[in-house]
Amino acid sequence: MDTLRWQNGQLVLLDQTKLPLEESYITCTKWQDVYDAISILAVRGAPAIGVAAAYGSVLAARMLADTRDYESTSEFLADFSECCRCLDEARPTAVNLHWALETMKAAAYGAEEQPVSSILQLLEDKAKSMQAEDVAINTAMSEYGAEELAAAGKPLTILTHCNAGALATAGVGTALGVIRSLHKRGLIRMVYADETRPLLQGARLTVSELMADGIPVTLITDNMAAWVMKTKGVDAVVVGADRITANGDTANKIGTYGVSILAKEHGVPFYVAAPISTFDLSLDKGEQIPIEERNHDEVRSIQGVPTALPEAAVFNPAFDVTPHENIAAIFTEKGVIRKPDTAQVHAFFNI
Amino acid sequence: MDTLRWQNGQLVLLDQTKLPLEESYITCTKWQDVYDAISILAVRGAPAIGVAAAYGSVLAARMLADTRDYESTSEFLADFSECCRCLDEARPTAVNLHWALETMKAAAYGAEEQPVSSILQLLEDKAKSMQAEDVAINTAMSEYGAEELAAAGKPLTILTHCNAGALATAGVGTALGVIRSLHKRGLIRMVYADETRPLLQGARLTVSELMADGIPVTLITDNMAAWVMKTKGVDAVVVGADRITANGDTANKIGTYGVSILAKEHGVPFYVAAPISTFDLSLDKGEQIPIEERNHDEVRSIQGVPTALPEAAVFNPAFDVTPHENIAAIFTEKGVIRKPDTAQVHAFFNI
Repeated sequence: MDTLRWQNGQLVLLDQTKLPLEESYITCTKWQDVYDAISILAVRGAPAIGVAAAYGSVLAARMLADTRDYESTSEFLADFSECCRCLDEARPTAVNLHWALETMKAAAYGAEEQPVSSILQLLEDKAKSMQAEDVAINTAMSEYGAEELAAAGKPLTILTHCNAGALATAGVGTALGVIRSLHKRGLIRMVYADETRPLLQGARLTVSELMADGIPVTLITDNMAAWVMKTKGVDAVVVGADRITANGDTANKIGTYGVSILAKEHGVPFYVAAPISTFDLSLDKGEQIPIEERNHDEVRSIQGVPTALPEAAVFNPAFDVTPHENIAAIFTEKGVIRKPDTAQVHAFFNI
Repeated sequence: MDTLRWQNGQLVLLDQTKLPLEESYITCTKWQDVYDAISILAVRGAPAIGVAAAYGSVLAARMLADTRDYESTSEFLADFSECCRCLDEARPTAVNLHWALETMKAAAYGAEEQPVSSILQLLEDKAKSMQAEDVAINTAMSEYGAEELAAAGKPLTILTHCNAGALATAGVGTALGVIRSLHKRGLIRMVYADETRPLLQGARLTVSELMADGIPVTLITDNMAAWVMKTKGVDAVVVGADRITANGDTANKIGTYGVSILAKEHGVPFYVAAPISTFDLSLDKGEQIPIEERNHDEVRSIQGVPTALPEAAVFNPAFDVTPHENIAAIFTEKGVIRKPDTAQVHAFFNI
């Protein structure tokens, strides 16, 4: 069950909206298919969105080359940029989407002296290498995180929110990568997984992923997190991230901010696991991160079944921002940023 | 749409599991029907459970008298006590259930010199008066709460959890009674209603109740409460209660404890609205309150639709306990207990 795979020049995506009860795939033959898949969360998770978008740009480049005879590479590059700009609008918060498309554009513009056909091949190779890199990044980050948490020297009870797992990345996952790495060392006692309304990525994806790997996991509703911390001896919270600003403020799935407050109240350290591509150093602080607001029916229904009156007013932010003060450390593929703030982040990036 | 009504010697309950999309009723002709209705939450909310149980005991008394010729009233009373004991086991946390049945038993034993037929009439009258009293209690409590909150002198944004409304009582509700009373004074700007997983009493009941009364309400998922407090200017949290111990610790729907922590973090005062029958002065503190754990399928599915693998492990406490330190005041029908602790509660009850 691959989150995404490049096959015969097409991007095949596991349709995560159907999990865990149905395993079906979406075949993307043009970039607009990738846009749609990202928009409806068929593929989700910041790193996976980045890789999917990279392949989406490959599909865009090929479609452009197929439909028009470009007289110059620069004309092609202009159209390619425009497609990337459109694809970039599929979701606003996860910066990895933007980062991946900028990386693809940079690769294309770096070869602007070459013919379009060469650029097509170069883009495909670049997307494949980004996918391979994400696997390596996940592994390295997981080891750094596990090493940090293993210092306690005892099996741990960990609470996580949403899905920052294999299904959110091309590899073993970010937060769930850390948990997998701890499990290999015999250091997981229990994982509590918030179901993560409205789209239930915790219930549908995280619980299934951990069960498949034989890692002990208990599903709870989001509003049980505080009581679990109070009564079940939670040792750490580990979550993923969609965008991290230069001071360490972290946008992640709605509910993460609340969990960080509950963790602080209970003296539980709160960790973020995210690749360096999740950092947006162009922003100073979390208030500057655009927060996606999604369709109100997501809150008025669950898996298509109505749970409230159809005319009920709704607020449906898809993300919130956890202030850096609430974060004990950020795990990346290049090491750990402890007590993140502007100085620590700048030092980490040698700015 | 009555939460419950006594009609032709039967208890007719609105089936709240079907709301808001279907208005259907359950007719209870024997006490076991009431037990079942309470167990499945067809009738729920501490005060409503109390009134329903009182009528349930009337049905029990009549069934006993119909099926056996008692030679003495004391034999009848022994059997009646046993039925009350069984009915009391329908749910463990809300003390109003126990309180109502103890009140009915005391009424019956207070007439033990009288024939069984007289006791039947007396019990029916007692249940009716408890229902009428609950209406008056709600109104008085709502005024006390509204008076306290109106002191701010401006329209308020209030967040509530679960349903402590007309559907949870025989009257206008406890927390929603306070909100109704504020709305009559033109002092409600917006109510944010947590959907309240797993059984969605917020989405299904609170939102519908407030919409029907023209009170502005916005539905959110439980994990949005922190972000709403951060970004929407919440002035107060008001919730109901299922059991309050002698130090002010308050058991209420799962998630309430977490909301109280989030409120503290954001400097938002947290209020409890509950009748005096919710106090259990036999318990010193919240740790002594039995917490009901319910069927795991409630968490693995929503309205019958699966949201996780059927074999997923689950933790499903129906309630949690908010420590009195997190509570700004408790509104009752006899007045307000500010900064509740053992001294304040004892002073209030003249202990």
